[in-house]
This record gives sequence, C-alpha cells and structure tokens, in this order.
Amino acid sequence: MSDEAPKPVRIGLLGRGNVGAAFAELLSDRAGAVEAATGRRPELAGVLTRSEGDFSDILARSDLIVELMGGTDPARQYVLDAMRAGRPVVTANKQLLAQHGDELFAVAREAGVQLRFEAAVAAVIPIIRTIQESFGVTRIEKVVGIVNGTTNFILSEMGASGAAYGEVLKEAQRLGYAEADPSDDVTGADAAAKMAILARLAFHTPVDLTEVPYEGIESIQPDDLAYAKELGLSLKLLGVAERRDGGISVRVFPCFLYGGHPLAPIEGPFNAVMVEAPAINEVTMSGPGAGGLQTASAVLGDVVSILAGDTPVHETRTQLPIVADVPSSFYLHLEVADQPGVLAQVATVLGDHEISVKSVVQRGIGADARLVMVVHECLESRFAAAVRALSELEYLRAPARYIHVVEEEF
Amino acid sequence: MSDEAPKPVRIGLLGRGNVGAAFAELLSDRAGAVEAATGRRPELAGVLTRSEGDFSDILARSDLIVELMGGTDPARQYVLDAMRAGRPVVTANKQLLAQHGDELFAVAREAGVQLRFEAAVAAVIPIIRTIQESFGVTRIEKVVGIVNGTTNFILSEMGASGAAYGEVLKEAQRLGYAEADPSDDVTGADAAAKMAILARLAFHTPVDLTEVPYEGIESIQPDDLAYAKELGLSLKLLGVAERRDGGISVRVFPCFLYGGHPLAPIEGPFNAVMVEAPAINEVTMSGPGAGGLQTASAVLGDVVSILAGDTPVHETRTQLPIVADVPSSFYLHLEVADQPGVLAQVATVLGDHEISVKSVVQRGIGADARLVMVVHECLESRFAAAVRALSELEYLRAPARYIHVVEEEF
Repeated sequence: MSDEAPKPVRIGLLGRGNVGAAFAELLSDRAGAVEAATGRRPELAGVLTRSEGDFSDILARSDLIVELMGGTDPARQYVLDAMRAGRPVVTANKQLLAQHGDELFAVAREAGVQLRFEAAVAAVIPIIRTIQESFGVTRIEKVVGIVNGTTNFILSEMGASGAAYGEVLKEAQRLGYAEADPSDDVTGADAAAKMAILARLAFHTPVDLTEVPYEGIESIQPDDLAYAKELGLSLKLLGVAERRDGGISVRVFPCFLYGGHPLAPIEGPFNAVMVEAPAINEVTMSGPGAGGLQTASAVLGDVVSILAGDTPVHETRTQLPIVADVPSSFYLHLEVADQPGVLAQVATVLGDHEISVKSVVQRGIGADARLVMVVHECLESRFAAAVRALSELEYLRAPARYIHVVEEEF
Repeated sequence: MSDEAPKPVRIGLLGRGNVGAAFAELLSDRAGAVEAATGRRPELAGVLTRSEGDFSDILARSDLIVELMGGTDPARQYVLDAMRAGRPVVTANKQLLAQHGDELFAVAREAGVQLRFEAAVAAVIPIIRTIQESFGVTRIEKVVGIVNGTTNFILSEMGASGAAYGEVLKEAQRLGYAEADPSDDVTGADAAAKMAILARLAFHTPVDLTEVPYEGIESIQPDDLAYAKELGLSLKLLGVAERRDGGISVRVFPCFLYGGHPLAPIEGPFNAVMVEAPAINEVTMSGPGAGGLQTASAVLGDVVSILAGDTPVHETRTQLPIVADVPSSFYLHLEVADQPGVLAQVATVLGDHEISVKSVVQRGIGADARLVMVVHECLESRFAAAVRALSELEYLRAPARYIHVVEEEF
C-alpha cells in the first residue's frame, strides 16, 4: 500500500451477514474521515455473498480484502489466495485464526502483506493491537479475559436473579445475546479459540487449538452463585493464558473472583481482558464484545491502519469552539437551622430555578442539622444562580457546598 | 527509518531522572526482544543530563530521540531541532504536548517524522494509540478519564478511612504517591494538561490549555464522602472532554459516580479512561498511571512502533510446551448428612491431600445440610484426587460440585 496517489482504495468484501452489512454501511458513512486520515478514499470494489459475486473477479478489482464470511472453508482459501496475490487482509474470523494461524501468518510473511484481525477477539476492545504493538516487546506473564459476552450475560443474570441456567439462556436468546444453537458459546469453545489467538500473540509461540481445554457454564447451579455471594465471590467464564514452569497454560473455565479483581465488575454482555507483566503491572480493557456495528468498527480500524502505514501525526480537521456552560447533575450539601419549613424553602428556591431533586437525606439535629441532596441535570449557570439564591436564606448556617455528579446509568 | 540493514538503531536519550533511568535499563534488558520484533538492535547513542552531554553532539549520533527531561524549556527546542533534523521523537512530556502541540505537530508533519507520546497520558495504558489508531476514524463523542493517580489515591483513602484531606495527603507523600509539592496534582492542573491532549486527538481540533478549566480536591470534606456513600456515590477527580452544541467542553473537576459507572471501581493510584462513541458504545482502559518502569514501558512501546513501521505479522520466537497440571484455588460444594463429625472427616481428607481451607460456611439442616468452602491454591491433580477420596465418604448425599476460584488479591 505504498501508492501515494490520491486514487480511491478498492475494498473487496467477502460476506454480507450482520457484520458485513454493518461494515459496508460504516465504510460509506466514514469514507470522508478515512480519506482525511489516510489520504485515500475507500470504495467497495465488490461483495461476495453465498448467492452473488465471484471471488477471483473481486480479488482482481481490489486493493485490500475484508473477510467477514466466517467459517474456515472457503474463507481459509480466499484469505490465502488474497495474500499470495499481494493483497493485505482484514478478518474478524476467530476460528480461521485459531485453527490455521501458522499457515496464515507464514503466507502473510512470505507475501510481505499485513494480516489484521482486531475484530476476531473482543470486537472493538483493541486488545490485539495492544498486545502486538504497545506490549510487543514486553515480557507478558498472563492474559486473563472475559471474551464471550453471551456467557457473561447469562452468569450476570443468574447471579442477579437467582434463576436457573435454562431460563436465563432463553432470556438471552430472546434479547439476541445468544444464538438459537448456543453451544459454541456456552461450552466455552468460542472463548477457547479467542484465548488461543491471544496466547500466540502474547507469548510469541504457536498454540494448537486442540490443546486448549475448555469447560462451559451449562452445569452451574443457582445455589452455587448464592452461596458464593456470601463468600464475596462473583462468577465469570474466564480464559487464562499464562507462563507456567517454562511452558504455558491456556484454558477456559468458569471461575469465581473476589470483589477487588479488575474483572469482577464486568457485568452483562461485555468483554474485558487483563494483561499482566512486571513492567506494566496489569492493564485491563473492557467494552462491548460483539454487535454488528461494534465489530465492523474494529474491522474499519484495521483497514485504516493498513492504509495509513505509520501512525499519522495529529492533524487538525476542524476548529471546535469551547462551550463554557454545560449541564451537570450536582450533590448539594446545606448546613441549615433545625426548624420547620427549611426543606420547603430550599425546595422552592430550587423549583424557581427549574432544578428538580433526585434524592435527599436530612441528617443531624440542632446545630448539626443538614440537608444533603442530589439534583437532576441542569445547566451549571442555572445551578450557580440557585446556589446564590440559597445563600441568601437566613436558615443557612454555612456556605453551600456542592460537587458534580454523573447521573447517567450504565 | 526505512533503512532495512541490520545495523543497530542509535537512541539519544534526553534526561536521566526516574523515568529516564528506568528506560535506559529496560532498553538494555529488552534489546533482544526489540531486535526480534523490528530487525534492529537498539543502543544508547548518548544521554543528556543537567550536568553531562551536549545536545547537538547526541543528536548527530542518534537515529531517534527519546525526550524524558520534562518541562518545556529547553525540551521544546530540543524536540523541534530533532524533528527538523529528520529524527523521529518519543516523549513522555505532557506539558510540552499540551502547551506547544500545534507547533510540534506542524513541524513533525513538515519534517515527515513521527512524534509519539503514549507515556504522556496514563503511562502504560495505551490510550493515545487507541484514540489515534483504533478509533482514528470513529466519531468520538466523549472521553472521560481518571488521569491523575495521586488524587485518585487520596480520594480512595479519604472514602475508605474517613480521614481528612491533609492527613491522607501526608500518607500519600510518605508512600511516594504524592510529591513534596503536590500542587500540580491536587489542583487538577496535571489532569487538565492530559485532557487537553486527549481532546485534541479525539476531536481532531486544536485545544488551548488555557481554555481548560480545572478544579482540584483540596476542599473536599470527609463528611461529603460519608453522606455521598449513603446515596451510593463514590468520588473521583474526572477529566471530561465531550462534544456539546457544535463545540466541545474540556474540564477537570471532582465528581461523584454511581456504582454502575465503568470508572466507579477504579481505586488507589490507578488511572482509567473511557471513550464513548455510537459505533463502539464505550470502551474503558485501566492500569497504573505512573511509575518509572511503567512509564518507561510505554516509551519503549513507542520506540518499537517507530522502528517496526507497519504492525509486524505474528512471528514465532519460541515454541513453548503446554503445561497441563496447574495450581488453582477452588470453591467446593458438598451436600452432606446432617450429623456430628462430618466437617472433621471432610477436613481430614483435605488435610491428607495437603489442601488447606480458606473459608467455609455450613448451611441447611437435615436433608438440606451442606458444606460450602473455598480452599487455597493447590495443583489441580491434587484437588481432583481429594474430590475422588471425598466421594467415597458415606456422608456425601450427592456428587461434590466444584468451581475454580482466583484467590489473588488486587
């Protein structure tokens, strides 16, 4: 991709399922941003689906191939052919990488082309780039991941509701977090493929997927989760890849974590990966692990990296003004006189400024009486005006104290 | 850096304080790994300190300059001179980037050299690379960060202990988390410089540091933290950069978060940054935000990226065997007969296998009696043997259930 001329870069897309369709749309939406970042405008040279298109024809018309068809056959042959024809490839295909990594990387090296696959593990969480680039010369000791969102959703729900595995699985299927045949996710097989890829990159060693043992979550009982909660534990389906006794261990299994563990707060259909090394302590990254648009975003990030080559030096694309007055929710702490009518007066002042109260606690008696509340989001200037008005109330024994609050629910 | 010949790459190091000394040592330790990853062995061409070395002389002998002296003068001139002389530059200098970004990026572009600065924000958390590369064409809406470890440590301690700001600050100074003059950290000025850098990269716009308002944590009262805890809130010093009304808002202020917020679990001297965009939902990254070795690791990651150019295709450096039997802690759930001596017998079997119990709860009566425990780490094969022996006890009413536990404290 050393051509510096401003002609468009032609992208051949293999597959138009959920992720493929999202990628085609995102590529069109962000074409201007890609051009600003790389100097070249991307365009789709052709799309191969089960019923339409011819691979050789699309390859001949493409500068870069994006493989989003899934499965290993014929994806493996297409990716190999594309690289041998000198085309860089971006793929989101974890099984392809986990089962045929040795062959694919060897051909990429021989052909001198890039093979990028950020979306194959944890979608938009940039764990592949981080391990390969940021920590490329760091001696990584351990990679621990929640790399399957379906099982994390199921375990979170079982823990929260006390419901049985089968019931929660049905709920997950209804919400689109689990497939009609969920076995690849719930047995741990999907997570094992992802951990094989991460282990290979972290330890610079071949990892044979058939040597990665995995256990699933099908036999977890609701009472295990209930008892464990008493012991301060929460359950995750963990992938662990670590150095051990001069070798490595790579495995997937349900595992309890104590509350302070960086992966313990990861709930719902999210992914997270923690990397440990003496030189970095531990770094943890979390985010949505799937979703068509999220996966397509990771694919587009790889496409841009291939087009850009070196990291681009920061360039101004726009000149945005600073907005000074923004909305916020606030914590408000008032030391007040202990007498009837104080809360009513305070509420009136806030109401006059169109500020509504989210929650309030009234504490202390006599010289220690105080009102502590959180108010809903309003413009800071409006809140400041309300505080000035409150300061004129004779009931106030000290200046009002206030601190910002993020009200947003996650 | 297009020279493909296997001669060493000569690195000129400016500054040998805490981070500079750690970088020099790390570079020497990891020289072999750098060579494996990039094809070129790094060597120090010279080190400039306050008392030793001449900049022009070091520049002439270097292929790449690493600036770790801090401050803006003479660092700014040295970095400009190096880039104008065609040398790529890696720096960890947040004030330099925040105050002189426009000039530095313009000169980097003119000279056609890379300017990398991962270590300037959140040390080894790869937030710069993620925003510039992974999300380089993503329309980012918001970046929220805990980007100062000193203040996060102080606020965590105040929340946990109820102690006053002044006391906890002294403790932080004693532990090396705060400097003798802590004002740059506790006023929010340090965080403001980092947020100005992140906002520039996220929104592709110049950000004038003098337009970034900041508040510190000096006036936070212990009772604010106590009352807020009753409302389910924890306090962080947040940096927020977001799009607002066609412009942007970039600010630093103490802020309460509800428990479900991705940044709420970040405690102690850690940093974390959350990036929000429609195409990625939110991605959060956390880790140590400072420390000589951690910062030096981020600097080395940038050096390797400059040397490697494109992301290297995965290459096997070693062939590590799979270790099958590894240690683990376990949760063990036994449905037992409700009669005297059961716990003693179970404990004896575990003891015979050299397995020690970390915690145990005994629950239920009669036909529902059970022992639920967590045992300390032991080899899995040993634990499996103990479970087989337990299964022969006549007291057991059902097969033993067990699940892995990560015992490690964080």
